[in-house]
Amino acid sequence: MKTIENLQNLIVVMQETQHITSAISLLSWDQECYMPKGGGRARATQLSYLKGLEHESRTGRKMQTSLSECVDLETGTLLTPASEWDERAQALLRETWRDYYHATRLPSDFVRTLGLETSLAHQVWIDARKQNNFSLFAPNLKRIVALKKQEADYLGYTDSPYDALMDEYEPGMTVAHITPLFEALKSKLLPLVAKIGQSGVSADDELFRKFYDPQRQWDFGLKVLSVMHFDLENGRQDHSVHPFTASFHPTDVRLTTRVDPHDFLSSLFSSIHEGGHGLYEQGLSQEYYGTPLGTAISLGIHESQSRLWENSVGRSRAFWTYFFPKLCAVFPENLKGIDFETCYRAINGVRPSLIRVESDEVTYNLHIMLRFEIERMIIEDDLPVEDLPDIWNEKMEAYLGIRPETNADGVLQDVHWSGGAFGYFPTYTLGNLYAAQFFNQAEKEVTGLSEKISAGDLLPLKTWLNEKIHRWGRQYSSQDLLARVCGEALNPSYFTNYLETKFGELYQV
Amino acid sequence: MKTIENLQNLIVVMQETQHITSAISLLSWDQECYMPKGGGRARATQLSYLKGLEHESRTGRKMQTSLSECVDLETGTLLTPASEWDERAQALLRETWRDYYHATRLPSDFVRTLGLETSLAHQVWIDARKQNNFSLFAPNLKRIVALKKQEADYLGYTDSPYDALMDEYEPGMTVAHITPLFEALKSKLLPLVAKIGQSGVSADDELFRKFYDPQRQWDFGLKVLSVMHFDLENGRQDHSVHPFTASFHPTDVRLTTRVDPHDFLSSLFSSIHEGGHGLYEQGLSQEYYGTPLGTAISLGIHESQSRLWENSVGRSRAFWTYFFPKLCAVFPENLKGIDFETCYRAINGVRPSLIRVESDEVTYNLHIMLRFEIERMIIEDDLPVEDLPDIWNEKMEAYLGIRPETNADGVLQDVHWSGGAFGYFPTYTLGNLYAAQFFNQAEKEVTGLSEKISAGDLLPLKTWLNEKIHRWGRQYSSQDLLARVCGEALNPSYFTNYLETKFGELYQV
Repeated sequence: MKTIENLQNLIVVMQETQHITSAISLLSWDQECYMPKGGGRARATQLSYLKGLEHESRTGRKMQTSLSECVDLETGTLLTPASEWDERAQALLRETWRDYYHATRLPSDFVRTLGLETSLAHQVWIDARKQNNFSLFAPNLKRIVALKKQEADYLGYTDSPYDALMDEYEPGMTVAHITPLFEALKSKLLPLVAKIGQSGVSADDELFRKFYDPQRQWDFGLKVLSVMHFDLENGRQDHSVHPFTASFHPTDVRLTTRVDPHDFLSSLFSSIHEGGHGLYEQGLSQEYYGTPLGTAISLGIHESQSRLWENSVGRSRAFWTYFFPKLCAVFPENLKGIDFETCYRAINGVRPSLIRVESDEVTYNLHIMLRFEIERMIIEDDLPVEDLPDIWNEKMEAYLGIRPETNADGVLQDVHWSGGAFGYFPTYTLGNLYAAQFFNQAEKEVTGLSEKISAGDLLPLKTWLNEKIHRWGRQYSSQDLLARVCGEALNPSYFTNYLETKFGELYQV
Repeated sequence: MKTIENLQNLIVVMQETQHITSAISLLSWDQECYMPKGGGRARATQLSYLKGLEHESRTGRKMQTSLSECVDLETGTLLTPASEWDERAQALLRETWRDYYHATRLPSDFVRTLGLETSLAHQVWIDARKQNNFSLFAPNLKRIVALKKQEADYLGYTDSPYDALMDEYEPGMTVAHITPLFEALKSKLLPLVAKIGQSGVSADDELFRKFYDPQRQWDFGLKVLSVMHFDLENGRQDHSVHPFTASFHPTDVRLTTRVDPHDFLSSLFSSIHEGGHGLYEQGLSQEYYGTPLGTAISLGIHESQSRLWENSVGRSRAFWTYFFPKLCAVFPENLKGIDFETCYRAINGVRPSLIRVESDEVTYNLHIMLRFEIERMIIEDDLPVEDLPDIWNEKMEAYLGIRPETNADGVLQDVHWSGGAFGYFPTYTLGNLYAAQFFNQAEKEVTGLSEKISAGDLLPLKTWLNEKIHRWGRQYSSQDLLARVCGEALNPSYFTNYLETKFGELYQV
C-alpha cells in the first residue's frame, strides 16, 4: 500500500510554499504589532508581491508536476484506485488538490490586486475607526467588495456567490445549510435574552471597570496562559489593536491582545480566547508542517478551540474556583470584600452591548447573525456600501435593542472587511456550536474534568484536545471530525442546553 | 541621451528581489528581538529557503534578460557607448552588474547551505556565550569557516582569499591596501594609549555605573534620537542582545539596543550609534528603493555615519553642553553634585577594556586590528578554530595589556562569525577614518556647526549628510564619494589629529 513516503516531492513543494506563507504571516503580524506608521505603504506593496509569489508557488509548474503524478488536476480524481493508498495519503491528496484547484481559479494578477487593496485598506480602516469616519473607509471597502464578487465568480457556486466565499473559511458550508440553523438559534436566543433582561437579577461587571494596573493584567494573563499549557518557549503574546493569533510553525505561535486599564475582563478573555487558538496551532503536527495534514481544518473548528477555552472553561465556576484567590492576591485593592459569587456573576453578566468581541455568551451570536445577514445583502443583493451604517444600526436595534452612537462602535468595529474576509463571521457561531459539543464529550471522557479544572490541572483537557482534534490537521473534514470525536453530527442543542442551564441558574429564569 | 527611464524592466526585477530581501531582514530582526526560543530551527529552515529564493531572483532568467539588453553579462561592458547613457543610468548598470556577477559566482545550493548553517550557528553562539563555552560553538564555526573559504574560491581573488570576502563589505578594499594603513594607525595608537595610561589623569566612568532606571534610560535614548532627527514615524527602537540596525524601506528603519541598568553609557551610545546608521537608511532614495541607487555604498561608509554621530557628535563638548542639563533633570539622584567636566571626562575615559562595543575611541581600533589579524590567519593560513581563544587572549595582552578571564568576554563576544561575516571587521576602522574626514568637512561647510550642536540644533548636520552622502546611494564608490565630498582621498591624519587634539587636551599629554 502506498503511503505518504511516496509523496515526498509533493510535500517538499508544499513546504517551500509554506516558507513564503509564514513570511507573509510574520509581515502581517509585525504590521499589527510593531511596524512604524510610515512603513504602511511599502509593506502593502511588499505583501502584495509576496502573496503573488505564494500563489505562483502554490499553483506553478513544480506543484502541477508533483500533484499530477497522482491526481487528475481538473477533477481531483486519483489516477490509481484509492485502495492503493493508505488513509493518510488519501487525505493529503484530497486536501492538496482542493487547495490547488481553488488557487488556480484565481489569476495571479487578481490575487496581487486584492492583496494590495486589503493591505492599504487596513491602514485606512484603523484611521477611519479612530476618527469615527465611515466615509473615509467607504471607497476602499467598495473596491474590496467588487473584488470579492469577482472572486466568487472565479471560484464558482451553485446557489449563492456567498457560498463560494464562505467555503474558503468553512469548507462545505452554504447559505442553505446555515440559514435555518441560525433562524432556529435566533428563536431560542431572543427569548432567553428577553427573560434575562426581565429577571431583575443584576450581574454587574462594574467591579472589573475600575483601574487595573496594565502590567499586572498582562502578567496575570500570561499566568493563565501557562496554566492552560500554552507553551511560552514556543510562542509569545504581544499588544495589538485587535487581538489575533498568528502561527509561523507549531514552535512559533504568536498571540496578541489589547490591555484596557478600565476593562480587565476584555483583556483577560482576549488572552484566553487567543490562547485557545494558540493551543490548536501548537498542537498541529510538526512532521507534516506546511501540508494539509499539519494545518487547521477550518475557521469554525479553530474558533471552537478558542471559545471552548474562553467560555466552557474560562467562564466556568470550576475555573474561577482555582483562579479567584489568585486574582484577589494580584489585585487586592480592587477585590477587597468581593466574594466568589459576585465575581462569577460579573464575569457572566448578560447584557446587550455594541461591541462583538466584548459581548457575552448569550448575545454574541446575535452580533454574528447581523453580520451574516448584512454580508449576504452586500454580496447577493448589491447593497451599496454607503447604506451599511444605517442597516447596521437598525439591525442592532432589532436584535439587541440598542443603537450605536458612533460608527466606530458600529459598522467600523471589526477588522474583517478591511481584509476582504466576507463569509468569515458565520464561523464564529459555528465555533460556539462545535465548542459546546466537544466540551460535552470531553466531560464524558476526561475523568473528573470539572474537579481537575477547579484544581488548576488543565493538562488533561489540553491533551484530550491535542489527541482528538489538533494532531489530525485536515485528515478529516470538520463534520467528519465532529462525528468521529462525538459520535454524532453537529447538534446545536448542546449549545442551547448549555446556555439555558448555566444562565437559567444564574438568572433564575 | 538614455536615462533610468529606459531601465524600467530592470528596476522592476530588482524591486521584486528587494521584497524578498526585506522579508528576510524582517525575519532576522524578529529572530533577534521577539522570536520565542523554540522557533529557531523552523526559522533557520525558512531563512535558508528564502535566501535561496532571493538568490534565484537576483540571478534568474528575468534578471538576465533585462540586464543583458544593456550589458555584457560576462564582462560588465556596456553594449552601447557609455556616452549614450547619463551618469545615473551608468551607475545603475555598473552596480547592478557587479551584484549580478558576484551573485552568479555562488551556486544556489551553496547559498542555501550557508544560510542554514549561519542561522543555526546564531542560536548556538547565543547559548555558547551565555554558558561561556567556546567548544559548544566551535563545530558550527568550523563548518562556517570551510564554507567561507569555498565562497572566496567561488568569488575569485588575486592575492588573498580574504580580499574576496572583504570586497563583499567594502568594494575594492584589499589586504594589501589595508595592512600598511592599519600598521601606521597602530604606530600612532599604541604610544597614545601608553601616554594616556601614564598621564595620571583619571577619567573614571564610575558615576555611570550606578543604577540607572532602565525605562528612563530608554526614554532618554529616544529623546536623543529625536533630537538627531531620526524619524520615529518611519522607524523604531527595540531591545536585542547585540545592537543592530535593520531597514526594510526608508520608511521603516529599525534600531535595536540593549539596556544595562548599571552601564548607562553603553545603552546610550548604542542608541546614538545605531541612530547614525538609521539616519543613513532613512536618507536613502525612496524613488530608487531596491536598486543600487537606493542602497548604502559599503559597510565602511555606513559605519562612518554611526561613528560620526556616536563620537564626533555624541562624545563632544558641544553635544553635552546641550544634553548635560537634560540628563541631570532625568537622573537627578545619580548626578547630584556632578559638574559638566566630570561628566564629559567620564564619557571620554580611555582605558583598555575587553569588549569592543564598549571600548573608547582610542583603543577601539586595536580591537579591530586584532580581529583583522586573526581572520587573516583563519582564512589565509588555515589556523584551526580550536586555537582561536588562545590567540585572541594573547593579542589582547599584546595590544591592550589585558587578558579576558572568560571566552564570553573574549572570542565569543561578537555576533559576526556566527553569521559568516569574515572580512567585516576592518570596515569598522575604515568607518572611523571616513567619519573623521567627513566631520572635518562638515565643520567647514555648515556655518557655526559647533554652536548649533551646543544649542541642540542637529538638523543642519543631518541635512548636510543627507545631501552629501545618503541620497546618492551607490552612485559613486566609497573612495569617489569621499573625494567628491571632501576634495581629497582617504587621509587617516584627520582621525589621528582628532584623537591627539581631543585626548591631548583631556589627558594633558
